[in-house]
Parts: sequence; C-alpha cells; structure tokens
Amino acid sequence: MINVVKIGGNVVDSPEALADFLSDFARMGGSKVLVHGGGKEATRLARALGIETNMIDGRRVTDAATLDVVTMVYAGLINKRIVSILQSLGCNAIGLSGADASVITAVRREPVRRGNVDVDYGYVGDIPAGGVNSAALSGLLGLGLTPVVCAIMHDGAGHLLNCNADTVASATAIGLSAIDRTTLTYCFEQPGVMKDISDPDSVISLITSVDFPSLKADGVVSGGMLPKIENALAAVKAGVDSVIIKQASALNIGGAGTIIRD
Amino acid sequence: MINVVKIGGNVVDSPEALADFLSDFARMGGSKVLVHGGGKEATRLARALGIETNMIDGRRVTDAATLDVVTMVYAGLINKRIVSILQSLGCNAIGLSGADASVITAVRREPVRRGNVDVDYGYVGDIPAGGVNSAALSGLLGLGLTPVVCAIMHDGAGHLLNCNADTVASATAIGLSAIDRTTLTYCFEQPGVMKDISDPDSVISLITSVDFPSLKADGVVSGGMLPKIENALAAVKAGVDSVIIKQASALNIGGAGTIIRD
Repeated sequence: MINVVKIGGNVVDSPEALADFLSDFARMGGSKVLVHGGGKEATRLARALGIETNMIDGRRVTDAATLDVVTMVYAGLINKRIVSILQSLGCNAIGLSGADASVITAVRREPVRRGNVDVDYGYVGDIPAGGVNSAALSGLLGLGLTPVVCAIMHDGAGHLLNCNADTVASATAIGLSAIDRTTLTYCFEQPGVMKDISDPDSVISLITSVDFPSLKADGVVSGGMLPKIENALAAVKAGVDSVIIKQASALNIGGAGTIIRD
Repeated sequence: MINVVKIGGNVVDSPEALADFLSDFARMGGSKVLVHGGGKEATRLARALGIETNMIDGRRVTDAATLDVVTMVYAGLINKRIVSILQSLGCNAIGLSGADASVITAVRREPVRRGNVDVDYGYVGDIPAGGVNSAALSGLLGLGLTPVVCAIMHDGAGHLLNCNADTVASATAIGLSAIDRTTLTYCFEQPGVMKDISDPDSVISLITSVDFPSLKADGVVSGGMLPKIENALAAVKAGVDSVIIKQASALNIGGAGTIIRD
C-alpha cells in the first residue's frame, strides 16, 4: 500500500500548522509520498521583485521570470524546508521536482482561445497519461525513502514547467496504482467538503461521480473545491483505492473528512 | 569507480558554458556525482530584495534572510535547471541538497574570535568526518541515478546550512572512497593551477603536499585557489584515488589540468 498525501498552501504558509502536519505525516506507517503546494510565498517574492502575478481561473500565468520565482520557492525554499523538518522527525524524505530522476514529465499547455483572444499560460504544464514514472518512484520507495514532490515538472527537453499541485497528487497516485494499492489524501484547512462553509458539522461524508453533478449544479460545491473533487474522481476512476479530502490536523484520524468514490 | 565532479560559479553563470559543460558531463561513463556552486545569482537576488551581502574570507555571512535566498537559488533555480538539462541529454540526474535522503549532514560553524570581535558566520555549516552518508548516495547510484548536489546542507535537527561547494565536493569524494575507488575533478574557467595567471601555458601539471607549502610561500598559489588545493590535498590524503583541477571545457580530455597528489 502506498499513501499519497497532498498538503495545500494554507498549511504550508503557517510554520506552526506545517510543523504539526509534518509531525503527523512522519508518524504515518508504510510507503508514502508527500505532494506540496506553494502557498503565498511565491506571490510575495514576485511582488518584492516587481514581477506582476496574473491568475486565470486560479492558475498562475507563468512567464520566464515567474517560472524562476516558483522554481526557487517551490523546489528550493519550501521543498527543502519540509525535507529538513521531516528528516529531523526520523522520516527519510527526499525532495523532488518532476525533473529529478525524471519522476514526472509534463507537457506545456497550448494557448487557449477565450472569446477573441488566445490566452497563453506560459510555462504551465499538464501531466499526460503515462507522465508519472512509477518505476523511478518505486525505486526510491524501495530504498526506504519518502518522496516529497513539489509542482515544478519538466518536459524532458530541458525546460521546467509550473503545474497544479492537486493535479500532481492525483497523477502521482494514479501512476503508483499501477504497481501497488494506492490511497490519495488531500489535506487542507477545512474539515472536508462542506454543505455550508460556515458550519463545520456540515461535512459531506461521501461524494460519488453520481452525486457530483447535482452538488455542482446546486452550487453546494464551487470555486477551488471543484477541480479538487474532479482530480479526486479522476483518481478513483483510474484505479486509486481510496481518495479522502480532509483537514490537515486530522491526517491520522480515521473517519474524518469526505470520501470520494466512483 | 565513482567520479565526483565539481563545477564552479563562473561556468554556472554562463548559459552557453553551462550547456557545453553539461553535454560533456552527460557523456562521461560510469557512476558519477556532480557538485555545483552558486554563481552570482544569489548575490543578484539578495540585492534585488535589499538584503546586504557580507563576505568574510570568501564565505558569505548567512543570516536567516540570506539562507532563504541561497536555498532558493542553489537548491531551487540552479539545481533544477541543471537537472532538467541533464535529463534532456539522457543523463538520469537527481538533484539533492544535503537534507534529501540525508546525504550530507553539516554542523553549524561556531563564531570565530578575530581580534576583539566574535565573527558569526550565521547559518554556515562545515561537514564533519562521517558527515557524508555514502550508503544513501550508493543507493541512489545503484538505481542508475546521477546525484546533482548543491551546497545547502542540513544539521539533522530541522535546520538548513549554507556550505562551501568545494568542500562539499571534497567531502563527498572522501565519503564515497569508503565504498569504491573515487576520483575528484574540480572544473573551473582556467586551464589548471597556473604559475602566471596571464599565461595559459604556465599550468603546473602536478602539485603534491610536499610542493604545496613552497608554492604558497612564494605566492605562486594564492587567493581562492588556496582552499581549493587544500580541499584537494585533504581528499587524496583521505583515500580519493585521483584529484584534478582543470578547465570545464576539458572535462573529458585526458592529461589536461593540474593533478593533485599526496
């Protein structure tokens, strides 16, 4: 069994929340992979350097200067901070971008036509089927290592690409499900997918591909939660054993959060 | 046989020189490890962020803000740039800080008394005997991977430390010499250690621990070349088979450069 865990930007942004989460993650038994988001540090660095941040549909438009910024922050600062903390907790972590051991190869996104304009996301990548090198990840897991993966991938031709960390987590779990039973856990700051964002008791315990369209149509699920659930549904459909969306602080607590099933 | 190659900042700073060097490095046969310096990118980033750069004896004084900068530039930007280029050249590179798989553990340097003041280098680390985890590096080499190591290390207690890349290369070669025959090659922009810096034909073909004191006393060898040769001599004394200081463009050319022997 391989457990893939995604930790989001809000937890990464808080040193205390991150330390608590990593302590829980280090305690998890068995083979595991951590995928981390970027948080606000890249936006802060870009601002300090006078680089404008453009977002389209929640994705950062990545020009060459922005690619350098996210590579520095995600693959450098945040990745090594997480790895060094995990090492101090006895978890033999190894930080990876997709280029390292070529664990994940992405494809640069084509410009998208929106009305009368072509929207070019720049150095943004999507992970195609077969983009995850499960043999390479398996080799590292076989050495007793815990891969800590940021969302900077490569195209195999010498270029780095900025990807979405939720999608990286989903693709990684799908890729690994070819070699072992795999679970995927999305950890974030809320107790799960909620009917009412202001009511922590309104967590939806189960979402399936049958429920999802009506939850979406009724507006119960919206915004950034939509792609997360779509990634989760893609993972269960592709062979991942179990997908859960839960609060970071509940990582090792059974029954917490929202289970996603096909 | 394991070949450890160090590439310096001046080559890292030039995209063309770096591409040429990596093309040569990718072609080298057998097990190999690349250790890279930082170049001027960290100084540029620090300046852009309004962080003052203080150097004492060629070592950057590393306060918390500077540690973040060098972690971003060395472990993020430069490391991933090198890894993605090597991958495109068919070399299965994996980028590492010392924290990753805990390949190298350093110890924070104690403040040094200079005259009437204590000089605190901040988050600067030195690599103690036994600091290189040759079993971990050997495991990665055994997977057919080529470690690409930057000079950001960890202390094992959750803190990152900024180290000198020449020293990292020397310590890595010494550590690996415990498990296999090992060579160490320092690549830089000059054709070797020269008697006359303005005369490329004045390369000293051999330096031994017997010659070195007089070369140093006569001022033939000075400045940044001194610690490089001291690191090289430490490596041969500790069991590294062969140490060569040569021009980056001569990586695969036999007989070029300066051989360091005990």
